[in-house]
Amino acid sequence: MSNPHEHVLTGLRVLDLTRALAGPTCTRMLAEMGAEVIKVESAPGGDLVRNISKMRNERSLYYIQQNLGKKSVCINLRDPRGMALVASLVAQVDVVVENFKPGTLDEMGLSYERLKEIKPDIILCSISALGQSGPLSHLPGYDFIAQAYAGVTSMIGENNGQPYIPLVALGDVSTGVHGALAILAALRYRDRTGQGQHIDAALLDAYYHCNEVSVHQYSGSNGAFKPTRAGAHLSYICPPGKGNGGWIVVMAFAPLEGSIATMGRPELANDERLGTDAGRLANRAEVVKMIEDWLATFPDRDSAVAHMQKHRVPCAPVLSIEETVNHPHHRARGTVRTVDDRIAGKFDIPGFPLKFSAFPKDLPLEAATLGQHNDEVLRQVLGRDANEIAELRAAGVLVEGKY
Amino acid sequence: MSNPHEHVLTGLRVLDLTRALAGPTCTRMLAEMGAEVIKVESAPGGDLVRNISKMRNERSLYYIQQNLGKKSVCINLRDPRGMALVASLVAQVDVVVENFKPGTLDEMGLSYERLKEIKPDIILCSISALGQSGPLSHLPGYDFIAQAYAGVTSMIGENNGQPYIPLVALGDVSTGVHGALAILAALRYRDRTGQGQHIDAALLDAYYHCNEVSVHQYSGSNGAFKPTRAGAHLSYICPPGKGNGGWIVVMAFAPLEGSIATMGRPELANDERLGTDAGRLANRAEVVKMIEDWLATFPDRDSAVAHMQKHRVPCAPVLSIEETVNHPHHRARGTVRTVDDRIAGKFDIPGFPLKFSAFPKDLPLEAATLGQHNDEVLRQVLGRDANEIAELRAAGVLVEGKY
Repeated sequence: MSNPHEHVLTGLRVLDLTRALAGPTCTRMLAEMGAEVIKVESAPGGDLVRNISKMRNERSLYYIQQNLGKKSVCINLRDPRGMALVASLVAQVDVVVENFKPGTLDEMGLSYERLKEIKPDIILCSISALGQSGPLSHLPGYDFIAQAYAGVTSMIGENNGQPYIPLVALGDVSTGVHGALAILAALRYRDRTGQGQHIDAALLDAYYHCNEVSVHQYSGSNGAFKPTRAGAHLSYICPPGKGNGGWIVVMAFAPLEGSIATMGRPELANDERLGTDAGRLANRAEVVKMIEDWLATFPDRDSAVAHMQKHRVPCAPVLSIEETVNHPHHRARGTVRTVDDRIAGKFDIPGFPLKFSAFPKDLPLEAATLGQHNDEVLRQVLGRDANEIAELRAAGVLVEGKY
Repeated sequence: MSNPHEHVLTGLRVLDLTRALAGPTCTRMLAEMGAEVIKVESAPGGDLVRNISKMRNERSLYYIQQNLGKKSVCINLRDPRGMALVASLVAQVDVVVENFKPGTLDEMGLSYERLKEIKPDIILCSISALGQSGPLSHLPGYDFIAQAYAGVTSMIGENNGQPYIPLVALGDVSTGVHGALAILAALRYRDRTGQGQHIDAALLDAYYHCNEVSVHQYSGSNGAFKPTRAGAHLSYICPPGKGNGGWIVVMAFAPLEGSIATMGRPELANDERLGTDAGRLANRAEVVKMIEDWLATFPDRDSAVAHMQKHRVPCAPVLSIEETVNHPHHRARGTVRTVDDRIAGKFDIPGFPLKFSAFPKDLPLEAATLGQHNDEVLRQVLGRDANEIAELRAAGVLVEGKY
């Protein structure tokens, strides 16, 4: 019954009440490390992402990517018998994870206090955009909302132009990882003391501590320094530059001598304006143009990158998604991996990001169809018999889907 | 001797060989959860960030932010007696964390194999930009290098314009959190089986799995769909818009009726071009202009946000760093916190992002001066006597600094 794959978290059982992205990332991390994750999906349709990125045979590739290795139980949560099943499951797990809008779990009758009555040492992890507390906690939350409130969006784009949003779910995914970390820390505490607890993991907080210098530089200068976006180039170095055929990130803080040798321009060492850090900062546009003109002398982007890397100038091609999927490094490391879904077939998704020497291969996990494990979980975890399961199914309390 | 603050990880001891940001974030997470973290800094100067963001009394606010609660031991790692001390410390800890360039730890004589000889169940966590394996692993690594290789940079900016880099250390910090998660998972495995292991946590991998749809959409469409940046607005919704006095992220996928009511434009429901999702996508520039013109009718940014939030349209002001520091929500949650450093005085940094109900307050942690705990660690962890410590200090093997 438990996750059949031995891994670092084998033996851990998690009740997963999450949907969409941040919550499912948290439980996916746990499942990929061997935990048994029982995902309760709300009948009739289940996780809303079952309806997006449906690119192959009515199967959502989004769902597959975010829910590998989880068992699916699809329950009508508006039926008291359905909620009773959920409460029964709480008694059988170590951890509950949810990412409803703050307050919703309480309204469903599953407050942390209630969960503790059912299982005194339960660990509840609540994931949200702006947190379980504070004056904004009631707002509807999405990645970009939290990103804007965290000051992160304000740091992307031209100084006096519009801010840009990365089309990558940096906050949702990172917050899922934050939540998983808090859960394992709380489990260590539970194992030591017998006490569970309620964890509050928010995108706002996960984004905010990524401000590695801005907050203390604003505060530490007593407000004299006001951090803001600065275009495509850092205030102290100059990525990215455009070579022939594509963009390149160049960390041009390699020693001046090295950069000059790399560019074959020894006369710059004596240039009054460009020979010093201060001078280059004051003439940034000219420095950028000089570097980009030089990059344009290469036949293509990758030959420019190879030349600079040979001279140990930190740089990288700005790879497109397409290029990442087929990159030999990404393939060698398992940064990208191919899954072979029994319905959708083979396709690529990002690899599991944590590499354990004792488990060098990703577990061969599958994503469940809707309610695929209704029967298994009710029998083996809750000890229900075939008659009761059939009744619950007939009453629409348990639902199964083809995909 | 151990971390005097009871928290979820009390009793765990970590040897911290990290510097800069990704590695120190990992060990900071552990220290803020109560682990005893012994940070070895390389003599004579210690962690390179002690020399940046030195904004108050020669004290680096950057160092303080990233190293709260860690003990500092400053050792000459080029002296065999120094390396012998490090090896002795390995025997006394549960976990070693390092973020040298891949291969460096081996060259220092502290390969994972060697660490295992010293302590058979040791857990070593190696943090790097591009990973310990694969053809690019030897490259010098920084956040923006990994971000470019992960395809993330390619997803920020105008479709046919230059890519932008967020001036926020999203990859470094998130990877530190990934590493901490892997460590706690490996500890659970060690406690169950007696086996340690080597963890490989890379910015590339941590960034890459944030591609929540792009990889599978490229691959799942057999290459027909090539994800790329799309400007300041998503392909299916429209943030951000500019109101009077600032930018606003608007998630305009609230039901059309709601948005129309919010804007007071009932006639739009029957508009041929703008009345449907497909029509609005085809006329995105016009939709953006319409929304921005409407936002401009408010006296300021915050009144526009308040109006939309009242109508439950998901939106947020694009807060500047300055605004985040003084925001009542951020203060109420501890998203921003004030530290009172004994040398640098009071200033603000991001809060610890994980909130545990059993420990509602951040621990009152301090950052060490260089080598502050030389004496304490050598006596209490390694059992050395005052004579030996004095000799090591006189020989420059142990170093202390004022800041």
